[in-house]
Amino acid sequence: MSVAPWRSALENALNFSHSLPESRYFQLATVTPEGNPANRTVVFRGFCQDSDNLQVVTDARSEKVFHLQQTPKAEICWYFSQSREQFRLSGHISLITAEMSQFSTVRNQVWEQLSYQTRLQFFWPYPKRKRSKPETAFNSPPPAMETPPETFVVIIFSPYQVDHLQLKGNPQNRYLYWLEESGNWEWIEVNP
Amino acid sequence: MSVAPWRSALENALNFSHSLPESRYFQLATVTPEGNPANRTVVFRGFCQDSDNLQVVTDARSEKVFHLQQTPKAEICWYFSQSREQFRLSGHISLITAEMSQFSTVRNQVWEQLSYQTRLQFFWPYPKRKRSKPETAFNSPPPAMETPPETFVVIIFSPYQVDHLQLKGNPQNRYLYWLEESGNWEWIEVNP
Repeated sequence: MSVAPWRSALENALNFSHSLPESRYFQLATVTPEGNPANRTVVFRGFCQDSDNLQVVTDARSEKVFHLQQTPKAEICWYFSQSREQFRLSGHISLITAEMSQFSTVRNQVWEQLSYQTRLQFFWPYPKRKRSKPETAFNSPPPAMETPPETFVVIIFSPYQVDHLQLKGNPQNRYLYWLEESGNWEWIEVNP
Repeated sequence: MSVAPWRSALENALNFSHSLPESRYFQLATVTPEGNPANRTVVFRGFCQDSDNLQVVTDARSEKVFHLQQTPKAEICWYFSQSREQFRLSGHISLITAEMSQFSTVRNQVWEQLSYQTRLQFFWPYPKRKRSKPETAFNSPPPAMETPPETFVVIIFSPYQVDHLQLKGNPQNRYLYWLEESGNWEWIEVNP
């Protein structure tokens, strides 16, 4: 399978900023069940094998999971401060939860790539509830770390539109890519 | 008027990162008329005088203006890489357009604070349409720069909830602030 035409620009931006850990963070916007916008920073966990789909991990108890179950769409805003460019990716969402045994291989693979510290967070008390006391609630070693707990969810983001803005240059440069029903990507240069 | 209790934490983050221009950029999520999420990077243009309302500028021809006319709500995600903390601000939106002569003082004040280069962009060809040729379409000096053109819009963002996450520390710290109907801010410490 050939990769999408925006991939090389995105990989270039990632390579150029690879010394900055935050270059792998982006903002994921969702819509709440009430129809309101929501937005948070998440960590890019690579592309799914042989595809243009991006992977993110989340806690099953987090609000974005409830948002995405109702409206399985998101828009990623990924700004690279070093190269001064922005990628906006619009896409469909699939959630890989503990119940979906047919995708357990992918779920296990993503889990294995996480640091010990990141894995520990999936055993922490319920997010966004009143702060648990004492602090040992966060420090107890979990019973097992080899397989992901029920709280571990993988978000698969399948882009159908990419808006690439380069702020360097005067005037700025902007390119719009979109996925045709045929499965091919088209693109056009647009005004910034 | 007293400032909101989350203001000092946000001002600290801004002061700590003041050497980085991108620390004044944040991601603004909106909802499209079709109910889909949208997300883009914008520049913080300060607080409105004597208030906790944030100012952003935009082009009247940009899609976010159409989104906000239909759903006048947004969520800001503001990540500070140096201090490793995130502020998520949920708020109501007011748009100050050229037609709203009763707010022309505010609109003029924000215009005057912009750089020459930023002002020029409001005279560029229509955003996100097929790239205009020749390049002189972007370089013609505008007739007047003293007063803002019709394309210049100020977005006023009035927060009603703030979610402050500090990634430094183990476990992380997270504080939730919300605006009561009385006009007072309440807050609680929550699990990260």
